[in-house]
Amino acid sequence: MRNLNQDNITQAVIARFSSTPDARLKEIMTSLVQHLHGFARDVKLTEGEWEKGIDFLTRTGHITNDKRQEFILLSDTLGLSMLTVAMNNDKPAGCTEATVFGPFHVENAPHFELGEDISNGAKGAPCFVRGKVTGIGGEVVAGATLDVWQSDDDGMYDVQHPGIDHAQNRGVLHTDADGNFHFRSTLAVAYPIPHDGPVGQMLMATNNHPWRPAHLHFRIQAKGYETLVTHVFRDGDQYLDSDVVFGVRQSLVADWVEQADGSYLLAYDFVLNPAT
Amino acid sequence: MRNLNQDNITQAVIARFSSTPDARLKEIMTSLVQHLHGFARDVKLTEGEWEKGIDFLTRTGHITNDKRQEFILLSDTLGLSMLTVAMNNDKPAGCTEATVFGPFHVENAPHFELGEDISNGAKGAPCFVRGKVTGIGGEVVAGATLDVWQSDDDGMYDVQHPGIDHAQNRGVLHTDADGNFHFRSTLAVAYPIPHDGPVGQMLMATNNHPWRPAHLHFRIQAKGYETLVTHVFRDGDQYLDSDVVFGVRQSLVADWVEQADGSYLLAYDFVLNPAT
Repeated sequence: MRNLNQDNITQAVIARFSSTPDARLKEIMTSLVQHLHGFARDVKLTEGEWEKGIDFLTRTGHITNDKRQEFILLSDTLGLSMLTVAMNNDKPAGCTEATVFGPFHVENAPHFELGEDISNGAKGAPCFVRGKVTGIGGEVVAGATLDVWQSDDDGMYDVQHPGIDHAQNRGVLHTDADGNFHFRSTLAVAYPIPHDGPVGQMLMATNNHPWRPAHLHFRIQAKGYETLVTHVFRDGDQYLDSDVVFGVRQSLVADWVEQADGSYLLAYDFVLNPAT
Repeated sequence: MRNLNQDNITQAVIARFSSTPDARLKEIMTSLVQHLHGFARDVKLTEGEWEKGIDFLTRTGHITNDKRQEFILLSDTLGLSMLTVAMNNDKPAGCTEATVFGPFHVENAPHFELGEDISNGAKGAPCFVRGKVTGIGGEVVAGATLDVWQSDDDGMYDVQHPGIDHAQNRGVLHTDADGNFHFRSTLAVAYPIPHDGPVGQMLMATNNHPWRPAHLHFRIQAKGYETLVTHVFRDGDQYLDSDVVFGVRQSLVADWVEQADGSYLLAYDFVLNPAT
């Protein structure tokens, strides 16, 4: 394997991966090499551009820590996350649709009883959220585990605030015997994804804004059902048609209804797909 | 732009980059999105595999520092580096061929006078290296700047030794008025690329070894000529046909001739391409 050139190197690299023991890994490596080389060949990547790519990935890695995930932001803004979600969540009609997970979920968030306030001091207009979790035939799903997370009124998640080391606007709850849940929180607002890093530079260089429409994240897990990762989006938001991460689905748009006292009410029900 | 699915999301993402002011960046982003999505679609990437990919890139970023460049190792081992070199260094017959830059070059290495020993205490059999730099018509290239770097007898570059904070087996020299250079060093040996990180895990999982055949790196810069980045490989090395980074070119293989006293002599001339 000497004297490889631009016409034969791709086959040589694929051959190198041909004895991969795991068949699925072999399939992935083969396709990855084909598309990676296809990209470089299609644009006739220069050495200077290759260096810029290495530098971009390096900076993306270095800004990523346990509270910031720039590679997920990159995947989100290139539409890879939503493509992956779409390919893997082709649910029967009637089920709640899935959307992107995003970079701000935290495992092992604090548990709350139904009716409690998960905001824990977060800024924002008071908001009451309620709904029901059912299966596709209408059967109630009791004891479903709901992970809920959202930004505050500044458009920031707790993990983005340098001075905050405890959970705000995030928590874990369980549906009651009738599949119902309700909790208090703050009003979700539109916010820009973190754009002071490599992904922000990419968005600026490509003439794109970094905004997401206001939304509330849910991950719903229940025995016998597929896990649902989704958001509820706020109707009327100016960014619903230009979400920087391509995540909006019309079926997930709902009205946060303003109440006489200035608080808001969101009512949204979820329908889970049975596990296969 | 709502309700994107696996069939229409790629065009939607490409449209998002359609107002990129820089035409070349627009071309690159468009092709990148097509191939990135094409890869995910071809293998029907699962959400768990996507998570593993995010984790792999994150670990690759975190192990990268000013002395270790895991993204370059990844590019090298996927053949992307050599493909990029091949596409951009299509020189006229008679010119010295280029190969990969690798991750171990250090800018601003110490300067040496011709004849000096660049090893600076590095372990290894003594080696004398000499040669001439000319243009394609045979004209001598006086005052060319040669960056030279190589591993020691343990197969390690200075920057890989935790206890060494000074340059070993690396230096900058200039050709004399006749285009000649000569310096002392140590015998180059085969070595494995760093394989205690994500790239090493990838190689192990795909049943590949991490070895490179013995070689000596050169970067040669001279006014009026294209910069040449290349290696000289040691003839007889067992890894010449399975270089983990796909870098070997037969024209770059040379004999390190053992002398009666146990030292070695490498004689190799370089021919530069005129700058366009």
